Amino acid sequence: MESQKSIDPAVLELLPKAALDGVETVWDRHEAQQPQCGFGSLGVCCRHCLQGPCRIDPFGNGPKTGICGASADVIVTRNLLMHVAAGAAAHVDHAYEVVEALELAAKGEINYSIADENKLQQVAKRLGLEIVGKSKEDLALEVVEVAYADIANHGKKPVQWLMANAPKERIAVWESLGIVPRNPDREIREAMHQVTMGMDADPVNLVLATAKQGLVDGYSGLKLATDMQDILFGTPAPVVTEANLGVLKEDYVNLIVHGHVPLLSEKIVYWADKLQDEARLAGAQGILVSGICCSGNEVLMRKGIPLVTNFLAQEIAIVTGAIDAMVVDVQCIMPSLTQVASCYHTEIITTMPIVKMPGATHVPFTLENADEAAQEIVRMSITAYGRRNPHKVKIPNYKRKIMAGFSVEAIIGALSTVDPVQPLKPLVDNIVNGNILGVVATVGCNNVQVTQDLLHVELVKELLKNNVLVVATGCSAHALAKAGLMNSEGTEAYAGESLKAVLTAIGQAAGLGAPLPPVLHMGSCVDNSRIGDLVTAIAEYLNVDSALLPVAASAPELQHDKALSIGTWAVTMGITTHLGVVPPVLGSKAVTKLLTQGLSDVIGGKFYIETDAKKAAEGLLEDIRAKRKKLGLPS
Amino acid sequence: MESQKSIDPAVLELLPKAALDGVETVWDRHEAQQPQCGFGSLGVCCRHCLQGPCRIDPFGNGPKTGICGASADVIVTRNLLMHVAAGAAAHVDHAYEVVEALELAAKGEINYSIADENKLQQVAKRLGLEIVGKSKEDLALEVVEVAYADIANHGKKPVQWLMANAPKERIAVWESLGIVPRNPDREIREAMHQVTMGMDADPVNLVLATAKQGLVDGYSGLKLATDMQDILFGTPAPVVTEANLGVLKEDYVNLIVHGHVPLLSEKIVYWADKLQDEARLAGAQGILVSGICCSGNEVLMRKGIPLVTNFLAQEIAIVTGAIDAMVVDVQCIMPSLTQVASCYHTEIITTMPIVKMPGATHVPFTLENADEAAQEIVRMSITAYGRRNPHKVKIPNYKRKIMAGFSVEAIIGALSTVDPVQPLKPLVDNIVNGNILGVVATVGCNNVQVTQDLLHVELVKELLKNNVLVVATGCSAHALAKAGLMNSEGTEAYAGESLKAVLTAIGQAAGLGAPLPPVLHMGSCVDNSRIGDLVTAIAEYLNVDSALLPVAASAPELQHDKALSIGTWAVTMGITTHLGVVPPVLGSKAVTKLLTQGLSDVIGGKFYIETDAKKAAEGLLEDIRAKRKKLGLPS
Repeated sequence: MESQKSIDPAVLELLPKAALDGVETVWDRHEAQQPQCGFGSLGVCCRHCLQGPCRIDPFGNGPKTGICGASADVIVTRNLLMHVAAGAAAHVDHAYEVVEALELAAKGEINYSIADENKLQQVAKRLGLEIVGKSKEDLALEVVEVAYADIANHGKKPVQWLMANAPKERIAVWESLGIVPRNPDREIREAMHQVTMGMDADPVNLVLATAKQGLVDGYSGLKLATDMQDILFGTPAPVVTEANLGVLKEDYVNLIVHGHVPLLSEKIVYWADKLQDEARLAGAQGILVSGICCSGNEVLMRKGIPLVTNFLAQEIAIVTGAIDAMVVDVQCIMPSLTQVASCYHTEIITTMPIVKMPGATHVPFTLENADEAAQEIVRMSITAYGRRNPHKVKIPNYKRKIMAGFSVEAIIGALSTVDPVQPLKPLVDNIVNGNILGVVATVGCNNVQVTQDLLHVELVKELLKNNVLVVATGCSAHALAKAGLMNSEGTEAYAGESLKAVLTAIGQAAGLGAPLPPVLHMGSCVDNSRIGDLVTAIAEYLNVDSALLPVAASAPELQHDKALSIGTWAVTMGITTHLGVVPPVLGSKAVTKLLTQGLSDVIGGKFYIETDAKKAAEGLLEDIRAKRKKLGLPS
Repeated sequence: MESQKSIDPAVLELLPKAALDGVETVWDRHEAQQPQCGFGSLGVCCRHCLQGPCRIDPFGNGPKTGICGASADVIVTRNLLMHVAAGAAAHVDHAYEVVEALELAAKGEINYSIADENKLQQVAKRLGLEIVGKSKEDLALEVVEVAYADIANHGKKPVQWLMANAPKERIAVWESLGIVPRNPDREIREAMHQVTMGMDADPVNLVLATAKQGLVDGYSGLKLATDMQDILFGTPAPVVTEANLGVLKEDYVNLIVHGHVPLLSEKIVYWADKLQDEARLAGAQGILVSGICCSGNEVLMRKGIPLVTNFLAQEIAIVTGAIDAMVVDVQCIMPSLTQVASCYHTEIITTMPIVKMPGATHVPFTLENADEAAQEIVRMSITAYGRRNPHKVKIPNYKRKIMAGFSVEAIIGALSTVDPVQPLKPLVDNIVNGNILGVVATVGCNNVQVTQDLLHVELVKELLKNNVLVVATGCSAHALAKAGLMNSEGTEAYAGESLKAVLTAIGQAAGLGAPLPPVLHMGSCVDNSRIGDLVTAIAEYLNVDSALLPVAASAPELQHDKALSIGTWAVTMGITTHLGVVPPVLGSKAVTKLLTQGLSDVIGGKFYIETDAKKAAEGLLEDIRAKRKKLGLPS
């Protein structure tokens, strides 16, 4: 039974302890929610006005329209637009905060610095800015000005971050569909308006609006956030560490960073290091910072901080009894954490004005007080360590070595050891000759509806066997890291022969003395922009539309609105995007057909829904082979 | 039975015809939706992530939290914030479009003019702009710049439209709660972020965020829209016309404007007049433009265009068989309209990029092509007239005389005939001495859950009897107009003695030769800003917090998210705000108590939920008397 909850051995080891300790977990609450509402699951429940709720009966003789007259098609697409707009809003809000940070850092008003002048120049050049003879602070302010100008843009000018970074062929397609966003905030506001009662009743128009929100996310969310974060904190380069609950150390203060925006977690990492002595004075060997979700990925990518676990096991991490404090910023933070923590000594610390939790300690974090807040939080974890009950501690002995830090720059760095002049050539040549059949990006969440990590891992193993190179972000990256797919041994064990040969050759050339991992960890969920950049770079190198490349995406266990908006962006890039959990659209046959078939004629990409890992792998392989065939490549 | 659907005799007359003609109406669809989902109605259904839907059992032994751990309190407040943010987004989107229009008009790039330089100067002065020696175009551009600056504001500066127009005592309260918005679009984006999975789990924080969205709506939605519209099209002054389906003329081309933004409907009114001859050539006596919902209110207020009907009877209007074309812009447009129109000759014309409907004719309306689009639409109505089937025509002989156009300026104009130096004095003196017990604003929608217009009319009659002056907007104004409460006869029939005496005196002084109507029509839903301005003016005149005034608000039949956001704004103004339809909050006792009681300690205002008109009137009278008592006024 437990094995249906997760394939992660550390989680399976701790689930009985959770029960013994009287902890209610996400799996318990999922069970308690059964059966879940079929109308909601199919997307045919509408609560947009106070005449509702309305429900469509998609099968029987019940109502075919809501009270206002909205059909199932309209209700499904309106709900979908709302989900995707919410996901885009989450990422734009994240990006905006980092833009603010770069502005204040460049002005010297906060204690953050510009860590990566190269990245700054690269971003500035893409935006068409002159870089010669400017201090990094001045150039940063010019970059910030472009970012702010997008968000402040009135009139019809398209988002500059998109125009500067998206493939030209794609822009032409989006322009022909009228979906190039003008200003991310305006588009989000307009989408919110569009879904209110008595607005759009045209499902096709609503799907196009949804696609536009995907672009808002892709460029004013993901890409903007990653660019700013790399400038502020450095562009990731390969790092080696470990993943899973076994990284926790019994004799250390264990401080977990959980959430998504590195502004806080970078400071935590810095101050945890500075305050090691205080931890020693408190009787610990030191402080160990490790990460959950994307805050974890961010500090992994740039600082080599170990990964504790991913979304679905955030409670289980506390069940180890060894976590002294968990500090959270935004997104994917279960409101249950304080309840779970109350069974242990763990301090749950909220930091952001829009994320508070009864029962948590709130330490307001601002850009201005970042160091003070981080010190306070680190010291809270040291104090909490003193309250730890050793009898309640159980750290499962499961962890895997991982190599991460694969920014596009890092990938190109590794490839340039093979061909310094045309670094993409070795990759592309191997795709062309079929040694690498294609590239699949696995992204997104855990979802309690499916066995934790199972779809991620099974899908990827199948793809690797078929010589597909896999890149990963988010909780998918966590899952694959925990499964041993992010180290050289993983290449030996799981990569098909020709893929293994390529990864081995590059690994040798790059001086690793071992193959590259078969799955390249490209970062957090906003770092899906890196995948977009890689696809864009390959498309530019080959001078073809990205929609034609043997590339696919998958969100095997998607859970969050953000995953839907990222997936929508991938589809706008012309990429077949697999979803392993059924989104709430099946209540409309027409819309389901549009999303999974019709869209590809219009925009090149489409959604592909398949809940079985093996079948999903077959479907993605088929898609890749079809694309190879169209390009005249062997398959 | 039919009488439970509506108290409007015209609607009651046509309902049997609808059935005979095979038309499915909103009442039929409402019946088909019974029973509606209790979880949704109570606000305890959560669909924010793909692990759900989750439902809380507020009564029995079912789940007390969602899968993520969110409690009923969290789910209810998250849903509420989403509703109110959507309402705010709708109004900000509306306002934004009118700002764009004023900008382009001032630059001479579109065929709209600045009709009201006085209003422009008044708005500019409030914003602290120097008005002397500037052309109206230059001044308008400066005003536009302030509006755009709010929307483009980075950093912590508060919304200038709010700072310039809100009562100082209120601003201090809002500042102490940290809810003064910085930039409407940013706040909407942030709210969308705040409600996604794993974000805010603090119901109080979520309620404060909801209050902030109310302020976004109040100042960057309602107030901004009204200001811009008055500048562009003129500030309303008293007009006399008629309301209800009886205004339609059998031998005229009947063209209906329906929606909310006057940019299109003003042009329609203009071109319908210009193209009268073409209608005559087509065999009609001319073209009659009349209005539904707030597009109707906008052209009523400024042009004296008759009102056809309100929200719930938009389909019934088509059932007359006499409507040749119905042109819609945004909001409150039932997706069923094309279905109803297909039983007649009526042309349904959509115009906006975010409101399309399969089966409608889409005539893209832009600021640049406004005249061409309006002419095309008017000509489409003339053509459709030729297809009208006289056997299907039945225009109920119900209509009521109405006086409308009561902008604050018009009210002050009327009052200044009594006291030219201190025009507010006669009104305030009569409130102080108790001739006018208080002022209640009735606003908002129809909602099929309750008998059309019943709550509006019964509540208001009760209030008038008790010498409460009533001001109204939106579909409430329609309801009261249809019920004969917006003419001098209404004062004779329904106003209490002392109120009648005041209205008669002012009517005489203003040269009407008759009393003012007992209900003053202050405009469309965005014109709730006018009510806010009136309250602010009285508070400023008396130098007291608006929360202390014997003033209340009521949305007796609220239906749209906009009504919730307007109501939230009213509460932030310190005003007790009655809702006659239960919003989806009862699933959380704590939140319900906070909204209906606790809030008043914090912010001065509160929601008051009562579905019975008589009881609601009693409750509001009690609230007004309590406020009078606190001020030491006789009650």
